[in-house]
Amino acid sequence: MTTQVNVRQDAYPTRDSDYTTVVDRHDPVVHDWDSAGPLSVQELQSYDATGYLTIHELLSPEELQQCRDELQRLAQDSDVKADEATVTEAESNEVRSIFNIHRTNAIFKKLANDPRLVRRVEQILGSKVYVHQSRINYKPGFVGKEFGWHSDFETWHAEDGLPTPRAASISISLTDNYSFNGPLMTMPGSHKKYVRCAGGTPEDNYKKSLVMQGAGVPDRATLTEFADNYGIDVLEGPAGGAIIFDSNCMHASNGNVTPYSRSNIFLVYNSVENTAEEPFAAASPRPEFIGSTDFTPAGD
Amino acid sequence: MTTQVNVRQDAYPTRDSDYTTVVDRHDPVVHDWDSAGPLSVQELQSYDATGYLTIHELLSPEELQQCRDELQRLAQDSDVKADEATVTEAESNEVRSIFNIHRTNAIFKKLANDPRLVRRVEQILGSKVYVHQSRINYKPGFVGKEFGWHSDFETWHAEDGLPTPRAASISISLTDNYSFNGPLMTMPGSHKKYVRCAGGTPEDNYKKSLVMQGAGVPDRATLTEFADNYGIDVLEGPAGGAIIFDSNCMHASNGNVTPYSRSNIFLVYNSVENTAEEPFAAASPRPEFIGSTDFTPAGD
Repeated sequence: MTTQVNVRQDAYPTRDSDYTTVVDRHDPVVHDWDSAGPLSVQELQSYDATGYLTIHELLSPEELQQCRDELQRLAQDSDVKADEATVTEAESNEVRSIFNIHRTNAIFKKLANDPRLVRRVEQILGSKVYVHQSRINYKPGFVGKEFGWHSDFETWHAEDGLPTPRAASISISLTDNYSFNGPLMTMPGSHKKYVRCAGGTPEDNYKKSLVMQGAGVPDRATLTEFADNYGIDVLEGPAGGAIIFDSNCMHASNGNVTPYSRSNIFLVYNSVENTAEEPFAAASPRPEFIGSTDFTPAGD
Repeated sequence: MTTQVNVRQDAYPTRDSDYTTVVDRHDPVVHDWDSAGPLSVQELQSYDATGYLTIHELLSPEELQQCRDELQRLAQDSDVKADEATVTEAESNEVRSIFNIHRTNAIFKKLANDPRLVRRVEQILGSKVYVHQSRINYKPGFVGKEFGWHSDFETWHAEDGLPTPRAASISISLTDNYSFNGPLMTMPGSHKKYVRCAGGTPEDNYKKSLVMQGAGVPDRATLTEFADNYGIDVLEGPAGGAIIFDSNCMHASNGNVTPYSRSNIFLVYNSVENTAEEPFAAASPRPEFIGSTDFTPAGD
């Protein structure tokens, strides 16, 4: 008797051994070098080399104020706080993140489909794109917690089933980012390497990992080597600006003891040619509000 | 019958009500403007205005290496780790601070009495000085914890009995201070105001407060107003340099998720004309290894 087994090809295996290993990325970072814009060739080259790009003054002062007002309103809405798509700080019970805002909130739905965002990402990813995940991140003053070093793609591959890192995130700053209030830090160039993490994925890992990273975390030796090789960029900048960064960037943020909170809108765009499949290293996919399976192109 | 009560004068009352209040500092910051050096008038003016001063390349490369080696040795010494003068991180049990090193360790005793340090502080404080407290601070990579905003003088007054803020600290960097590995942050100019903190002092407060601040912490409204008024300076700089800062500076540091540890030697000099009395807001003084009552002048 012959048993036929369909083994799915996995270009980025992870969480399958006791060791962390580092391999080259197999896929390009920039997929369309030939479009007329909106990004210039210089901007694409910089994104390709570092894994991120800063957009100054993406939002007008009026748009910024509207987003801020909406943020304040949502943080105080008891229905929102009780929703499973809302994550609160482990110690203080303050709202840390609200997911799925591109579907549940009119203001952020419009923003997620705004051509200023969508066209840039389409250019980088070389196709139509859809929103894989969206969220508001609050980092309150005094008690804002840190987030350890990780590649988003590792999690999206392992737990959400994205086949390749043909995805990009846009973080829109709603507050000023200083070096001292827990800004985004990246290791520029790290997106060209893939860290195959140790260990398995515990059931319902997402509930814990959204607050404190557990599975899918590179080991300290790898992170030290990465920091020595790539350095650390601290992404400061005024409210209303944004950062586009590659899904496989090694990034983190420190806690925040200053009085200045840090809030942003976080939108993850994935290529419609890279839609989510079954998870590559988890028993079941994460909930719809974290990893969308609605592949309708954004901005259409 | 007449009962005579000796009431000690307290120019800086604290922890005596339910509210935080802010008052002017009554005492000068710089006590000797006329000496020939080593600090220039410009340096004294800057220190007077901001409450701190940076010394570049205080230690030679050889001295720096000697201190680092000693630090490593001490962190791995099980006797040192078990000593009451050693404080470990709440979560990771790694060594956070070792106190009293100017008395227990030959290398750091020599450093604490080094004329490069002592003469500068004598000039600022306008008298002979003695070491009120000494310690090594380790802020390990990945798990280094934050330290909230506080004035050292408030604690030294309340718990150690220093009458006035005629004291200065020197923090000698044994590792490079980047904006991202939890460096010292100060609010420049805040040393000219005294924050009279709310609440009492719990018994054995020092055991907790050395790891996480509790009593003697300004409220959030005051800290927000201070940050808005004074701003926040992030004190970056290479290993071997040092920062002298006034005992009443409002300062803090964020946690550290980067691989780069942050270590420093911390020496507190107090004027011999400002020696410790009974605590001003605590039942009994803190242990000798935290607040010294040996008033022998340093560097003699």
